[in-house]
Amino acid sequence: MSDDDLTWRIIDADPPSDYQVFRVRRHRAAHPRTGEAHTFSVIRSVPFINVLALTPDDDVVLVRQFRHGVQRVCVELPGGLVDPGEDPLEAARRELREETGFEAAHWERLGVVDANPAIQDNQCTLFLALDARRVTTQDLDPGEVIRVETTPLADIPARIAAGDITHTLVTTAFFFLLDRAGGWRRP
Amino acid sequence: MSDDDLTWRIIDADPPSDYQVFRVRRHRAAHPRTGEAHTFSVIRSVPFINVLALTPDDDVVLVRQFRHGVQRVCVELPGGLVDPGEDPLEAARRELREETGFEAAHWERLGVVDANPAIQDNQCTLFLALDARRVTTQDLDPGEVIRVETTPLADIPARIAAGDITHTLVTTAFFFLLDRAGGWRRP
Repeated sequence: MSDDDLTWRIIDADPPSDYQVFRVRRHRAAHPRTGEAHTFSVIRSVPFINVLALTPDDDVVLVRQFRHGVQRVCVELPGGLVDPGEDPLEAARRELREETGFEAAHWERLGVVDANPAIQDNQCTLFLALDARRVTTQDLDPGEVIRVETTPLADIPARIAAGDITHTLVTTAFFFLLDRAGGWRRP
Repeated sequence: MSDDDLTWRIIDADPPSDYQVFRVRRHRAAHPRTGEAHTFSVIRSVPFINVLALTPDDDVVLVRQFRHGVQRVCVELPGGLVDPGEDPLEAARRELREETGFEAAHWERLGVVDANPAIQDNQCTLFLALDARRVTTQDLDPGEVIRVETTPLADIPARIAAGDITHTLVTTAFFFLLDRAGGWRRP
């Protein structure tokens, strides 16, 4: 059996609804076996990036901001949307500098994941940035109110267990770190 | 400084738009410092669960299905939405059985994460299920076309590195496993 037996082909689609940071589009697609039309809604968004930045002392650079989806202040890794014409690494360097004032000497890509493949169309590219240092002040967008903090890498598992760090794209970044490094240390 | 200095308070909201699996609601909220109103859109969804189920031989139970967001067939852990009146563990047992026909002897909660806190309001509870065995056939919804496969746990990192497994809630489940077990083995 091939993936063709699992694939729904699009029949037709409505014009999308625009919510600024994302759009929503409804479409009809054919059941792979019966051909019966079902309706699906998809959230269309530009690519994301995030950055696991470690200082020379192996502190993690974190950002604290109010998140409108969950209506509470969250602690996360620096990150954001890729601008038109930018590649993910450029976006990652820019977001780290703009959100935190930090730059890093050494960058590597940890991986790429789907943010929410059932209902969203975009990916997140995750980066590791080593020897990050604060070189400038924040440069925030009008809708951003962000506080920067640093935490020893070794303290991260306890903060996750305590529910202090809860974003799935952040735990995914730490997945790649643990898989590469074999533990809570720089790879 | 407290989190109050980061918090945006809602001014007013529009009635939500209904996309069946989720709703979208726009609201205006006040900048924490200036009080200026900005518009935000939030995707409202019921809670998710997913299940990292290991057979007695430490194979991982995986599901293969077409994902409408990314328009391709994806390999993921069993999972789904929590039904009204259900708690996450009940939903997890049910989804594992319905999607794969497997049941497990031993269940533990790995953690809870925000699916997408900037724009979504829901959480995902992740479970570990040990000694999972196929006991029945699949029991799928009309819109579900799912193939079941099993893979040795030790093969998972290579599949992730190869881009075969890409869902951020799946890499998050493996984050919790690596953190608990210290490697690619059952905790």
